[in-house]
Amino acid sequence: MKPIAKLVVIGVGLIGGSAALALREAGAVGHVTGVGRSRGNLDVARQLGIIDDATDAYALALEVANVVLVTTPVAQMPAVFARIAPHLQPGTIVTDGGSTKQDVIAAARMALGTKFAQFVPAHPIAGTEHTGAGAAFPELFRGRKVVLAPEPETDAAATASVAAMWEAMGASVSIMQAARHDSIFAAVSHLPHLLAFALVEELALRPDAPEYFEFAAGGFRDFTRIASSSPEMWRDIAIANREALLTELRGYRNQLERLERLLAASDANGLNALFATARDARNDWLARLS
Amino acid sequence: MKPIAKLVVIGVGLIGGSAALALREAGAVGHVTGVGRSRGNLDVARQLGIIDDATDAYALALEVANVVLVTTPVAQMPAVFARIAPHLQPGTIVTDGGSTKQDVIAAARMALGTKFAQFVPAHPIAGTEHTGAGAAFPELFRGRKVVLAPEPETDAAATASVAAMWEAMGASVSIMQAARHDSIFAAVSHLPHLLAFALVEELALRPDAPEYFEFAAGGFRDFTRIASSSPEMWRDIAIANREALLTELRGYRNQLERLERLLAASDANGLNALFATARDARNDWLARLS
Repeated sequence: MKPIAKLVVIGVGLIGGSAALALREAGAVGHVTGVGRSRGNLDVARQLGIIDDATDAYALALEVANVVLVTTPVAQMPAVFARIAPHLQPGTIVTDGGSTKQDVIAAARMALGTKFAQFVPAHPIAGTEHTGAGAAFPELFRGRKVVLAPEPETDAAATASVAAMWEAMGASVSIMQAARHDSIFAAVSHLPHLLAFALVEELALRPDAPEYFEFAAGGFRDFTRIASSSPEMWRDIAIANREALLTELRGYRNQLERLERLLAASDANGLNALFATARDARNDWLARLS
Repeated sequence: MKPIAKLVVIGVGLIGGSAALALREAGAVGHVTGVGRSRGNLDVARQLGIIDDATDAYALALEVANVVLVTTPVAQMPAVFARIAPHLQPGTIVTDGGSTKQDVIAAARMALGTKFAQFVPAHPIAGTEHTGAGAAFPELFRGRKVVLAPEPETDAAATASVAAMWEAMGASVSIMQAARHDSIFAAVSHLPHLLAFALVEELALRPDAPEYFEFAAGGFRDFTRIASSSPEMWRDIAIANREALLTELRGYRNQLERLERLLAASDANGLNALFATARDARNDWLARLS
């Protein structure tokens, strides 16, 4: 790919910061301008060499920008798109890193109006439970998937450029419809986060919680790792993908009721079959990954 | 501790095999005899230096044995105790590694009769998702907890010997009532296993399961790691600890219903508070661990 002469990262956290570092390492970017609400975080980003300069003036930031990468929490994106819109030049591509796509697309369509074709909806499938510029590292996207969810109006050349950008960072790109994306990620990402938060909260509210936690071990630690994720970020994702997530929550509760019935009946064969189906499916999945 | 001149391990898998290796490494055991149903597994155990010899003759195995460690799946323990009983000499201590305690104690009491005082119920809080002698390693118990759940009749000197045995392997020992043990582990271990199995099964049963799994990433992998565990073992644990586990399942389903209500109402503050309580509780727990 042709290097991006000027990249603007709005929201220089784990995702945006890691993207800037990865593009630098690939020699795929010239100048990086950071935009954000927290001065302290932008200072960290500059000290770590993630960005070259920082501003909160959108007019200045967007001047001669080739790519604007919006990696704020999804709930902030409508306001960010509204601030981008008046300064967005014809040759500039806007893309995002949001975990939900239908709501981000609706916000971009509303704010950008006739410039909506310049927006390429994207979701890099990567992350850790840590946040902020200090958590960024250039290898985050290596070997990972990025979903692009272009709309009928989206400029095809812009989509190709964003695909090339993520590939330069070592990721592989899939194209998917936004609604399908949101259904799939409700099931494989958003639901597990809610389930992990719910388990830890259930224990934390007990008067004798300390004794429970004292005997929690490795299985519990891995199961609940994602419950150390940002509450604000997951609140926003949950609400943004509410319908798909409610469908998944109900499906999962039905599955738990089924499990409860098997257990109440001491149905050893039924429990064994359920556990074995799960174990085999997971092991098949792991085998395909490697 | 005084080394165990002859240790008998019944069920030479991850737990029993690792205990034998750890005791050898600590210079805390002389001869190790393995007993098990699978000739192949016992051969592996001998090749790996876990056991010195193997037999399926309980009379021979128990001769001059100092400690008999029963680390079969919990559902097999009643039969194992019944086979031990006629050959159990007065000076021999029997202990186990089962994940549930009330059912194991009931089985031991029934099978051992007047020799029940020689049995020390134990649960080492360690494991991986792997099984069999080939998965054993001597560091498994280092820095981990072991719960002993002696009954009023249990010989105090036997309890002290079993505590010293686990401490020689690098573990720390807690004493707890069996019923309390089963409640706590239903919540922090058995329930998470069922939740992970249920999530993977829910996805695996969908006609378009491959597309879901294709986009599952690191959060899903950690959340579901324990769903790669042995179905047979978890079927047995679930049934053995059925009442406590049903209580936990119901409590968790109530918590999910609460979450659903918050989400259906788009209650951002409510979701944020729930997630933050969980995140903080988990991070406090991690901080206390380290």
